[in-house]
Amino acid sequence: MKTNDKIRVAVFGYGNIGKAVEEAVSVTSDMTLAGIFHHDEMDRLEASRPDVVLLGVPSREAPATAERLLEKGFNTVDSFDIHTQIPAVYRRLDDAARAHNAVSILSAGWDPGSDSVVRALMEALVPQGLTYTDFGPGRSMGHTVAAKHIPGVRDALSMTIPLGTGIHRRMVYVEIEKGHTYDEVRDAILRDDYFAHDETHVIEVDSVKALNNVAHGVRLSRNGVSGTTHNQRIDFNMTINNPALTGQIMVATARAAMRLLERGQYGCYTMIQLAPVDMLEGGSEEWIKRLV
Amino acid sequence: MKTNDKIRVAVFGYGNIGKAVEEAVSVTSDMTLAGIFHHDEMDRLEASRPDVVLLGVPSREAPATAERLLEKGFNTVDSFDIHTQIPAVYRRLDDAARAHNAVSILSAGWDPGSDSVVRALMEALVPQGLTYTDFGPGRSMGHTVAAKHIPGVRDALSMTIPLGTGIHRRMVYVEIEKGHTYDEVRDAILRDDYFAHDETHVIEVDSVKALNNVAHGVRLSRNGVSGTTHNQRIDFNMTINNPALTGQIMVATARAAMRLLERGQYGCYTMIQLAPVDMLEGGSEEWIKRLV
Repeated sequence: MKTNDKIRVAVFGYGNIGKAVEEAVSVTSDMTLAGIFHHDEMDRLEASRPDVVLLGVPSREAPATAERLLEKGFNTVDSFDIHTQIPAVYRRLDDAARAHNAVSILSAGWDPGSDSVVRALMEALVPQGLTYTDFGPGRSMGHTVAAKHIPGVRDALSMTIPLGTGIHRRMVYVEIEKGHTYDEVRDAILRDDYFAHDETHVIEVDSVKALNNVAHGVRLSRNGVSGTTHNQRIDFNMTINNPALTGQIMVATARAAMRLLERGQYGCYTMIQLAPVDMLEGGSEEWIKRLV
Repeated sequence: MKTNDKIRVAVFGYGNIGKAVEEAVSVTSDMTLAGIFHHDEMDRLEASRPDVVLLGVPSREAPATAERLLEKGFNTVDSFDIHTQIPAVYRRLDDAARAHNAVSILSAGWDPGSDSVVRALMEALVPQGLTYTDFGPGRSMGHTVAAKHIPGVRDALSMTIPLGTGIHRRMVYVEIEKGHTYDEVRDAILRDDYFAHDETHVIEVDSVKALNNVAHGVRLSRNGVSGTTHNQRIDFNMTINNPALTGQIMVATARAAMRLLERGQYGCYTMIQLAPVDMLEGGSEEWIKRLV
């Protein structure tokens, strides 16, 4: 593929995810990096005219940023991860994308994202039954931030440990500020709404930084009924580097965005609305031969 | 949903799969059975004018039957499972479907089918690496038929046992005809091209029928690289009733066929070309809320 046929991808916002996107683009044959843009560089981004903008901004800023970019005619991919807000954000971005003949991919990560695809496939295969999503072991961003805000906490890390059937243990590692005691900090954490409903253990450590690890995992399991036949069992397990997988998925869905655009299928899409083959480099018929 | 809004599904060819399709339709809220048709009842099928025809004919007959139905303007779903022939059949059915403003779903089973979707998702998440498909334990239709054709075999069952990394053991249970010996039958099976390349064990039994069991299973595993990060591990496991799952998948993809038709997206589709949400009963936004 010649350089000028390649999909020109811009990274907007450059933290862990932006860096992972940059790495994932670098190993494709069908994409090239149009540039990396900090979130105050909208003018420079507009001048670059990329085919698709991948958002590395903090999750809570992603919807407004995506909407703003769609209104300027850009196509977007984000990994917005606040599950409860996704239906409303979907509506908003779908309106903006359709109004500007653009495509927006919403919540392209692993959960929400590829786990959602697995849950959808499980529903199609086994329409009646229970699906459990068991996260971890891995760092919970939300719980880590909550623990860091507890008075007396200098630094914290909250690990999510799967106990099965969607029940999780929280292992909270804390550095304690001078003038505060372990007991006081532990009690405040256990009372916090983020931790009050789960089994939570608070452990004092000298250095939270020394525990840093972006490994994560998930198990999705479903047991139910296909047609009228019970005891159909499906399990999906991953152990992964968290930002690397998120960046990879954003790049794969950027490819799908371009294919939707070529077909004039404007609008907003979550991953359960994408054909898997559209995320892959190369032609459908080659993948039919290799995978089907 | 009123009866007259329901998708009218016909079953064409009535064996194990046709029966499983009938059961899967019976537990939907958005479909109704237009009828069950034996493969010499084309006139009766035409008079019934179903929205979509689900093929329960033997796999080798599925492509020609689907093509004939598409040419009459029907939409079709088959579970054609001869992997090597799928690309050529895809071309043929795609031409026929487009020529008649119809939709054809090809190879809608679990392998090829939902396993293909999982393999595609694994490629999107982990573009560099190895995927292994380990089947079983479960009955292999092809190997069972091959064993039944060996002289001196009255009845046979060939079980596929997964040994990992795509390597399989064959456990062949045989009833031996009078006038033949176990040694003679065993040697003939071990020389047969179906068995010569795998570890094969031949076991004489009084009754093959007593061993009958439609349970099957599969494990798909991939370890590879997302972006530039190695050791990303994904596993997918199922233990299932084989015809029940196939019938269920055909019904789910029939729903997807109707949605493609509504959007004017005529042609042939394998499951890696379908958006997972299109296989599910009810609206996309409800599933976004529940699964994403």
